[in-house]
Amino acid sequence: MSHKLLVVGTVAFDAIETPFGKTDKILGGAATYIGLSAAQFKNVNAGIVSVIGEDFPQEYIELLRTNNIDLSGLETVKGGKTFFWSGRYHNDMNSRDTLDTQLNVLADFQPAVPDHFKDAAIVMLGNLHPAVQLSVIDQVNNPKLIVLDTMNFWMDTTWDLLQEVIAKVDVITINDEEARQLSGEYSLVKAAKKINEMGPKYVVIKKGEHGALLFYNEEMFFAPALPLEEVFDPTGAGDTFAGGFSGYLASTGDISFESMKKAIIHGSNLASFCVEKFGTERMQTLSTNEVTERLKHFKALTQFEINLTK
Amino acid sequence: MSHKLLVVGTVAFDAIETPFGKTDKILGGAATYIGLSAAQFKNVNAGIVSVIGEDFPQEYIELLRTNNIDLSGLETVKGGKTFFWSGRYHNDMNSRDTLDTQLNVLADFQPAVPDHFKDAAIVMLGNLHPAVQLSVIDQVNNPKLIVLDTMNFWMDTTWDLLQEVIAKVDVITINDEEARQLSGEYSLVKAAKKINEMGPKYVVIKKGEHGALLFYNEEMFFAPALPLEEVFDPTGAGDTFAGGFSGYLASTGDISFESMKKAIIHGSNLASFCVEKFGTERMQTLSTNEVTERLKHFKALTQFEINLTK
Repeated sequence: MSHKLLVVGTVAFDAIETPFGKTDKILGGAATYIGLSAAQFKNVNAGIVSVIGEDFPQEYIELLRTNNIDLSGLETVKGGKTFFWSGRYHNDMNSRDTLDTQLNVLADFQPAVPDHFKDAAIVMLGNLHPAVQLSVIDQVNNPKLIVLDTMNFWMDTTWDLLQEVIAKVDVITINDEEARQLSGEYSLVKAAKKINEMGPKYVVIKKGEHGALLFYNEEMFFAPALPLEEVFDPTGAGDTFAGGFSGYLASTGDISFESMKKAIIHGSNLASFCVEKFGTERMQTLSTNEVTERLKHFKALTQFEINLTK
Repeated sequence: MSHKLLVVGTVAFDAIETPFGKTDKILGGAATYIGLSAAQFKNVNAGIVSVIGEDFPQEYIELLRTNNIDLSGLETVKGGKTFFWSGRYHNDMNSRDTLDTQLNVLADFQPAVPDHFKDAAIVMLGNLHPAVQLSVIDQVNNPKLIVLDTMNFWMDTTWDLLQEVIAKVDVITINDEEARQLSGEYSLVKAAKKINEMGPKYVVIKKGEHGALLFYNEEMFFAPALPLEEVFDPTGAGDTFAGGFSGYLASTGDISFESMKKAIIHGSNLASFCVEKFGTERMQTLSTNEVTERLKHFKALTQFEINLTK
């Protein structure tokens, strides 16, 4: 059985400053992080739909290929320059300033889903212009599940189009502030209910170092973030979470609520590695053993026995 | 077997303003919340050491007595006025301004532990002047466990005395900002290690709506706060948590790490009720059934099955 995961999102250059140091232009982008994270599930066939310029190094292409990521949907624009983002994190690592954004080839991106990914069971719409996300939804054939990641920028600038996307997806993953902005509700429980009414049956609210909440009807599930000695670089943590979430669902083919609980645990687990080094560095060397070992920490962190019959 | 829990802390008048309304002078104080919370464990004999003025209503005394709280250690100062605190919460409920603090009888308080509580197995030092906490430690006979709650105010004003107390306790419960202030470390994992070196074997870091972390040697455990539709009044939530934590430990007599995990779940569970109404109102009417039902929600919120052998 094929386990296809279609990923749309940016493939980019990032330049990052944290209190621990700064990088030159390194590999970044939502689709990159999602793909590397989903690649941890060995039976998943992940394909990326994205765009790069001619300046994108062959070495990065090879890196993605080595991780079994299908790049037939990765368009290279002749003479074009790859999307570039640069940001500086504050000392608490919870907030950041964008220093530079150069859309470059992303400005005119028309996504084309390769024929052999149109029947993907799971579609993961990474953070990107809602028009691109809509176009991908229009090109796929009745997937089992569409997962949407988005951000406040699109709420500020393309509200109506974003609402169109939200109405068509099964799962939305956004952070707590974005959930509040989208719903107009401060309480995350109320916010999830309102977002639920906009379309998505499942609402995942990411709270960064405070974990993630999954809402489905009247049910809730919570995955903590693993408390770490040091967060080195938070870039890509949310995308890595989304990659672990959608990758796990693709790997099992089970999109029940019970399966989604495990999916957000896997997402949190993988995200806890991402932040340990700059950019994608940690995800590049991550072994299955390390992932399994840390899952044990997640269990120990949250599992308890209380006899409720007494 | 007797299950004595000795509680020292304030018994007070509070006047509270939240976005939902405001109260006149109502029953408050750390020892009050701790006592009412610990009273949920029916086999626990909780005794309060505190001080009130002649203005303290008989009705409040009766309320505490009805909850089986031993008041032999509650001194009434003739002609004195009860400690009074007044505060206003901001819209996000995560921060508040103190509008008024009148120490009154608390200013000269010399705690006297009743003879029949000197052999209490568990001592819960509620938030109060470190000199009072030290005096209580000096009066008890080798308890199994001493739990300390404190706050940033004492770090700012009585650092050395507070360090003396911290060196003598087994468990400390403080919030995340206080843990950072006390340790000089931003990472809570690092903060817990430094605080550990100051004395307490167990460090509990309260993160409010983001739950609580328990640290012991290299082990960590996390209890989420139950996501609520509405937080009506956060006053006393931390004390209610401490009461549930110490009450559970007193009720079982088991002070192992495994038992402490359950204790922070019980603490979080009880605190989730406290914030549903003004002051102690919700805790006054809380039934065992309600507590058990909500514990089931806590289990559903956090428990998952991931097969780690594959």
